[in-house]
Amino acid sequence: MSPRPQPHTRSDYPHFRELTTRWLDNDAYGHVNNVVYYAYFDTVVNQFLIEHGVLQVATSPVIGLVVETQCRYFSPITFPDTVWAGLRVAHLGGSSVRYEVGLFRNGDQSAAAQGHFVHVYVERESRRPAGVPDAMRRLLQMLQSSGSAETRSDHS
Amino acid sequence: MSPRPQPHTRSDYPHFRELTTRWLDNDAYGHVNNVVYYAYFDTVVNQFLIEHGVLQVATSPVIGLVVETQCRYFSPITFPDTVWAGLRVAHLGGSSVRYEVGLFRNGDQSAAAQGHFVHVYVERESRRPAGVPDAMRRLLQMLQSSGSAETRSDHS
Amino acid sequence: MSPRPQPHTRSDYPHFRELTTRWLDNDAYGHVNNVVYYAYFDTVVNQFLIEHGVLQVATSPVIGLVVETQCRYFSPITFPDTVWAGLRVAHLGGSSVRYEVGLFRNGDQSAAAQGHFVHVYVERESRRPAGVPDAMRRLLQMLQSSGSAETRSDHS
Amino acid sequence: MSPRPQPHTRSDYPHFRELTTRWLDNDAYGHVNNVVYYAYFDTVVNQFLIEHGVLQVATSPVIGLVVETQCRYFSPITFPDTVWAGLRVAHLGGSSVRYEVGLFRNGDQSAAAQGHFVHVYVERESRRPAGVPDAMRRLLQMLQSSGSAETRSDHS
Repeated sequence: MSPRPQPHTRSDYPHFRELTTRWLDNDAYGHVNNVVYYAYFDTVVNQFLIEHGVLQVATSPVIGLVVETQCRYFSPITFPDTVWAGLRVAHLGGSSVRYEVGLFRNGDQSAAAQGHFVHVYVERESRRPAGVPDAMRRLLQMLQSSGSAETRSDHS
Repeated sequence: MSPRPQPHTRSDYPHFRELTTRWLDNDAYGHVNNVVYYAYFDTVVNQFLIEHGVLQVATSPVIGLVVETQCRYFSPITFPDTVWAGLRVAHLGGSSVRYEVGLFRNGDQSAAAQGHFVHVYVERESRRPAGVPDAMRRLLQMLQSSGSAETRSDHS
Repeated sequence: MSPRPQPHTRSDYPHFRELTTRWLDNDAYGHVNNVVYYAYFDTVVNQFLIEHGVLQVATSPVIGLVVETQCRYFSPITFPDTVWAGLRVAHLGGSSVRYEVGLFRNGDQSAAAQGHFVHVYVERESRRPAGVPDAMRRLLQMLQSSGSAETRSDHS
Repeated sequence: MSPRPQPHTRSDYPHFRELTTRWLDNDAYGHVNNVVYYAYFDTVVNQFLIEHGVLQVATSPVIGLVVETQCRYFSPITFPDTVWAGLRVAHLGGSSVRYEVGLFRNGDQSAAAQGHFVHVYVERESRRPAGVPDAMRRLLQMLQSSGSAETRSDHS
């Protein structure tokens, strides 16, 4: 197994979204279940795209299919905590985007969990690969991380 | 089937909680799925009890078991909408509480959905009926609805 | 509150579907959370319609919107239990259907929970009321309950 | 990004569990949402441990905390498909276990998705690291993959 990365800090992410936890997020061990973290990932990515007008869920001719996700868990989140989801773009390719997400509990500066989420963009109907649309590309360039050593070492 | 009730308004509820929707809340028809509304119900009730110090999830000797829930759906909620969950207590019995919840989409004054949630309080270990604890009873009296005609007609 | 109904038995339902529970279905109290029962309801209804060819999720011109759901909980279900979901049609109107669902744990003959689920059929695009399509109506007549006293008393 | 792995086949996994999909698993794009795959992972792992008597959810003094999960998605799964979840153990350390899970749609021989799930075993109360209990270790040795080239290349 690869060496365990360090938790990110809030300054590693240019965009944040506040998310509320739910009673049912806690599992039988009394903390937010590992599955639910990916619901937070999914939400911060798609909400960013929708609110900036580059994704219309019902009609966009090009949509993002998820081809890979990963999460590392450092410390528990427990309902009714609030989650702050940080978002950055680690790689912006011709037809794919690698998003990275950090989840911060309440006022914590150190991530409770962090991971990535890779979208491949396809034509909605045919599901064939498509280029990342121009408007989306311009938007996502604003979320590109600055390429610090820490960022690079995390996905070498 | 009983006559269809009218949607409540925000003034029918003394307590509100803002809840964020998730990408996965939307189902194949593109709106928040009927099941998810109950996750909002569950959350507003338990968060109120936890934040007011009358429920400690891991340790309270008396816990609420859900014996009945119901929801009526009036108009769609769609991610990334924000939900405002209104809460009131319609009946505060010896060992049971009937909560009523109204869900309001973004700035809407009229409920997108409303329903109820009945807790019976039991001893955690034996799961035998227990009285509603005194501190909880005093707290819940603050959420009792004023007994308007509208309220009464809704659960006669 | 209305008098509490008795749990149904398996013979009250003409159709059954076996459903698997999930680790995350259990909440912090260690049993399947009240919300999840509605995911079982939703599943048994839609799977019946899809498998009998009367609902094509992506293309049917008429779809069912959920306008009311209710569940009464009698005894816990706990992952990794298996759930047997029984389905019957209690009312088949011009544009609406009232389904009733009973959930049975493992080999139990008495329902762990039971409730209803009301679909109103609408045109997919306009979301205006539509008649229950003929093929669906013929199918659902096969699930109509025989009108026993027990059934009637349950939704008077 | 690392080179994209090939989908596994059923013969790569020594243990299987049949899981049912749910209506709500499908998201607004009409296929099972990426988040839900992890609910299948969680379920196959914990159900195996519970059914073989090495995990008692409410009482085991040692429990597994999830420290890392990952999933790669190859082809869609759509409700009401059935999922066959294959399970193997790729690494059995002193206090951690790396499980690998492959998800197969209906009768497919090639995985729709595959990934891993790393448990670190801790004392329930203190959440301090603990050794993998002996009975669990003996059980998990039965799920260890044979060390084929394919397996090794997947997590080198």
